[in-house]
This record gives sequence, C-alpha cells and structure tokens, in this order.
Amino acid sequence: MAAAKQINIAIIGAGGVGKCFLAQLEALAVRRPTLSLNLCYISTSKKALFNDAYTLNAGNVLQDLAASTKAPLGLPQIADYLSVSPSKVVLVDNTSSQDVADSYPVFLSRGISIVTPNKKAFSGSYKLWQDIFTAAANSGAKVYHESSVGAGLPVISTLKDLVDTGDEVTKIEGVFSGTMSFLFNSFAPVEGSGGNWSAEVAKAKELGYTEPDPRDDLNGLDVARKLTILARLAGLPVESPTSFPVQSLIPKELESVSSGEEFLQRLPEFDSQMEETKVAAQKEGKVVRFVGSIDVATKAVKVGLEKFDKSHPIAALKGSDNIISFYTKRYGSNPLIIQGAGAGGDVTAMGVTSDLLKVLAQIS
Amino acid sequence: MAAAKQINIAIIGAGGVGKCFLAQLEALAVRRPTLSLNLCYISTSKKALFNDAYTLNAGNVLQDLAASTKAPLGLPQIADYLSVSPSKVVLVDNTSSQDVADSYPVFLSRGISIVTPNKKAFSGSYKLWQDIFTAAANSGAKVYHESSVGAGLPVISTLKDLVDTGDEVTKIEGVFSGTMSFLFNSFAPVEGSGGNWSAEVAKAKELGYTEPDPRDDLNGLDVARKLTILARLAGLPVESPTSFPVQSLIPKELESVSSGEEFLQRLPEFDSQMEETKVAAQKEGKVVRFVGSIDVATKAVKVGLEKFDKSHPIAALKGSDNIISFYTKRYGSNPLIIQGAGAGGDVTAMGVTSDLLKVLAQIS
Repeated sequence: MAAAKQINIAIIGAGGVGKCFLAQLEALAVRRPTLSLNLCYISTSKKALFNDAYTLNAGNVLQDLAASTKAPLGLPQIADYLSVSPSKVVLVDNTSSQDVADSYPVFLSRGISIVTPNKKAFSGSYKLWQDIFTAAANSGAKVYHESSVGAGLPVISTLKDLVDTGDEVTKIEGVFSGTMSFLFNSFAPVEGSGGNWSAEVAKAKELGYTEPDPRDDLNGLDVARKLTILARLAGLPVESPTSFPVQSLIPKELESVSSGEEFLQRLPEFDSQMEETKVAAQKEGKVVRFVGSIDVATKAVKVGLEKFDKSHPIAALKGSDNIISFYTKRYGSNPLIIQGAGAGGDVTAMGVTSDLLKVLAQIS
Repeated sequence: MAAAKQINIAIIGAGGVGKCFLAQLEALAVRRPTLSLNLCYISTSKKALFNDAYTLNAGNVLQDLAASTKAPLGLPQIADYLSVSPSKVVLVDNTSSQDVADSYPVFLSRGISIVTPNKKAFSGSYKLWQDIFTAAANSGAKVYHESSVGAGLPVISTLKDLVDTGDEVTKIEGVFSGTMSFLFNSFAPVEGSGGNWSAEVAKAKELGYTEPDPRDDLNGLDVARKLTILARLAGLPVESPTSFPVQSLIPKELESVSSGEEFLQRLPEFDSQMEETKVAAQKEGKVVRFVGSIDVATKAVKVGLEKFDKSHPIAALKGSDNIISFYTKRYGSNPLIIQGAGAGGDVTAMGVTSDLLKVLAQIS
C-alpha cells in the first residue's frame, strides 16, 4: 500500500487534555509513520508556534511553545492560514472555549476537519449545531467529538451507530459526571450510610474531583450540556442546555456567595436537606443518584436526583465512573450499557486520538 | 456535497442474520439515497440472484431469490464476477462458513472489501488471520467484523480504539455467550437458589436460546473463538481456539451420544456435578459463571467456570446479556465495560450494517 499523503495537524489548547493528546499524537506518529502526520500549528491562549513551512520541530513542542515569542493567531487568521495549507488539515480543539466552538462552521466550510472534546460547540444554540453539520456536509470536511460525552468511552459513536443503522432509541439514562458519581457513591453508598453531604463535597474538592469552585459541578450544567448533545443525536431538536429541567444542588442562599471557599464553609448549614433526600430513599430500600435522562418518545429531557434500587447498575457504580444506558427497540428490555472512567486527561485525549484516526481513514 | 459513487453490495447467506441485514440494508438505501447502494449478488447455499447488469430488482429480493433457478457461483467465480464489477464492491458474508472465510484473502487481494459476523475467519488458524490482514493492507480493501464478538455491541471497535491510540490492554474478561449467560443467570441466580442444571438446559433449548444440539454451546468452543479474536486484536498471536484451556460442560460420558435429544435425556444423571460447583460457590457467598479471560501480560487465555462475588457486574448480569470488561493502563482499576444483548438477528445485523457504513465512509 502506498503511504498516505501528509496530513497537517493544528492544535488549539495545551492544558491537561491538550498535553495528554500531544503525547498520544507523538507516540502515534512514531508507531505508524505511514500516517504521515505533521504538526503545523499549536497555540495556548498566550503563545503559538507556526511558520511558513507548515512544519514544527517534532519532539520538543511544549518547550518550544513555552519559549515562543509569537502570540496566537486570531480565529479568522487561523482559518486563513490552514485553508492555504499545502496538505489536508485536521484542527484539534483541546479547549473548552465557546469562541473556538463558534468558529467551527467557518473552519468546516473551508474544508478543515475538526476533532475535539469541547462540549460547547454541540451543546450551545441549536442554530450553531445546525450550522456545524451543514458546513461539514457541504464541504465534505469531518467533525468528530467522542470525548464531549463520557470522555474516551464509546458513547457518541455507539449512539450514532444505533441511529445510523435504523434502530429506534427510546430512552437514554445515566450518570454523566465523574464528580457527581464520586459524590453520590460516597454520600449514599449501597452498603453503609456514607458521610455528610458537605464533608463529601469538601473531600471531592481536596482530591481534585471538582472544579476549583465546586458550584460549577453542582449546578448540573455540565450534565445538561452532555444530555443536550445526546438528545440532538437521538433526533430531538433541543434548543439549549437550559431549555429543559435541570436540578441544581446549590442551595439558593449560596448561589451568589462570592467564592468557592465561602460556599464550602457555609455548605454544612444545608446538610439536612440532602440528608432528608438520602433517608427517604433508604426507607424505600433505594439510593439516591444524580442522573440525566432522555425520553425520546415524550421528548422529555431532565437532569437531577433520582432513586434507584440497590441492585440497579446505576446504584452499583464505583469511584468516579460514568454509566450510560441506551434503551432501544432492537435491544428490548435490557439496555446496551457503557461504563467506565468518564473524565481524566488520558482517557479524554484517547477519545480525541481515536476520532483523529477515524478522520484520517476517510481523508487520507 | 456530490452524491457518492455507486457501491455494489454482494451478500452470501440469507438465514436469520442475513434476512435482518437485508431489511436493514433496504431501509438504509431508502433513508440515505446519496449512499447509492446497489445490490448486485445474493446467494444461499442452494440458490443465487445475479446478472450481467450487476443490478437486482430492489424490494422483492427474498421472493426473487426463492424463485431463482440459478445455483450459487463457486467462491472463485464470485471473486471473478465481483472483481470486474463496474463499481467498488463490498462483500457481506452472513454465513458461518469456514469455506467462505478461507476465501477472504482472495477477495481482499482483488480489492473487494468485506463486512461479516462470521467468526471463522478471525478465529481459525493464525496463518489465515495474517493472510486476511496482509491482503487488506496490500490492496487497500477494508475488512470489518464487529458482530463476530458480542453481536452489535461495540466490542471489537472499542478494543481497536484502545490499541490504536496506544493504551495498554492488560486484561479482558467477560461473559461472551448469550446461551451461557441465560443458563447461569437461571441456574445460579444472585437471589434464590435456581433450578437443576439439566432442567435449565432443557428450558433454554425450548426457548430457542441454544443450538439445535445444546452440546454445540456447552463445549465452550463458541466462547473460545471469540476469545481468540480479542486476544489477537490485543496483540497475542493465539494459534487457534483449541490452543488454550477451554472447559467443556459436556460430561465425558455424553460426548459421543448420537443426538441432542439423547444428550438432554441423559443429562439429569450428571446434575450432581454442577450442583456441587454451585453449592461450593454459595458457601463463599459467590455465584458461578461461565466466563472467558485474557491476561495479556502472562499471555494466558482461558474459558470456563469461575466464581464471582454477588456484587460483581458479571454476577449481576440479566437474561442472555453479554458483558465485556477491558482493563487497561489508562482506565486503571475500574475497567471499561460494555454490556447488553450479544446475540439475536437484529442486533447482529446491526453490527454488520454499521460496519458497512464505516467501510462506505472510506471507499466512497
């Protein structure tokens, strides 16, 4: 087989996921030289590496980037730069930036394929969603975003396969947040009684399982964004992640306190509310979990607390694992279930790398 | 976007899976006319439909096939016929035939892509495995076989993604047979004591969960074939499905009785053996299950009875579901788990159809 034509890779973002992806990309280029991968652009919010030859020095990219005196190009300039690249280009967006997401239709319409874990593009306005997939369909450029839900777990690809082969997805249900999973597996374990809610939140923050301000997890918006993506893939034209009921676990009185520290300090005042919820579930022999669900027939999407039998797979989840159940016509009463780590740099980057391989198989 | 060039589809096999696939293919052609799918050949072991125009009448294929007076072409003749097709060809092998499997290298080397649920090609001799993938690499033809393990569950694709992105798979473990799953979930349930072994086998046969002769399930070979495929994908050059320990659940005395009926009649004589195994597990608070496992580091592949804690996901399986756990370096102590129906015409055909879509995305 003839070696594939060179593909230029451009990366925006070099944070946790970005660094893991770069390591996987470098290893991939060594393991499979016939893929002819060539890094032509990389930027953080402050710095960038690129040149007229469209070729960076491999091996020392992060050091070179740190030492660079070049500012990142603006998004329209990146599109200009990449659209005159001598080879086909895949843009890897490893940010969580809405600005970058808003530019996807421009990149795609200019023939630049995109792989990304960035949820913002697919869970923002429904118009942006339509613009992205229309631009891709018109130009033939590809857009893959496996890691936007459940990190590297095969969630998006499985749902797409079900829909594309003509199955009828009736319901999707699961635990979509590693933080929420960890909190409830500790707060309301299947065996034993668990700790106080505020103590579990503080512990989760200490272990690095929450955002710097835990309210950014507890408001449910991250889960709502993931549900928005899955609902749209299942055929529901969900307008935005705030267009359906999302239960926030932030007590009203603490919504506007100025810092995450103050929030954590005052959270114990509200422990009795969560304790009541836990005890009510226990009385029915159940445990409480923070889940998202999509009922396709009734078009009902919701995010919040639900009670589950102790033998239910959602109750038996461990650590910070995600679990996603797809109920479909073909699969009948027992759903197709995907379970495992749904957060973390390496597994998130893995989803991006496997998306890249799928795009390469189609454009090389 | 311009419509894709026409793709000719050839199908061998029109049994349970074949009929479901044909229905999915016809629906797909209607739903996505831009795929330009065209059925050019279909055969059973006795009859065939094909013509010089490489175009069959859509809509009545099964009736036309039943009424056909043409005998199927021999495998070399099918390869000749397809290799001068005016369009690119995908061959769908919906048989479980070793002869068809043995011909894959010929088809692939002549540029004909293959999608199939047929386990025989990938679990036969290691030489056949090598010949298949060498032929595909040399010609650029594609070969996909998702449904060869776990039917439509994303098992093969997930393992490939893990390996291709550079993760280190350390262990694969699971229940790979719908029949064995059903038998042990009834014989040794997590709650209650379950029935007699021979009665459960008889019931499973009555419900259509076993092969016509249940010994074809109980000998463990079906599971051994699936393990062989996964082990090879994980990098182990397993020689054949009989080159590692496989526990047969057929009592030695009944191996050579002449019929499945006689086997079922005499099986109660041996119930005490299985009962002892069940009770021994119960005494440890465990349940017994028929599982396959691959330890990649020690290269140990095995199939047989194992005991599991009642809280283990393998113990909690329902109905005839499969469960497959991938332990990897990136996923750490909690495995990536795929669970759901691993047998049945529609879900098996779904894996074939989604493979077809992946091939089309690359060759259209």
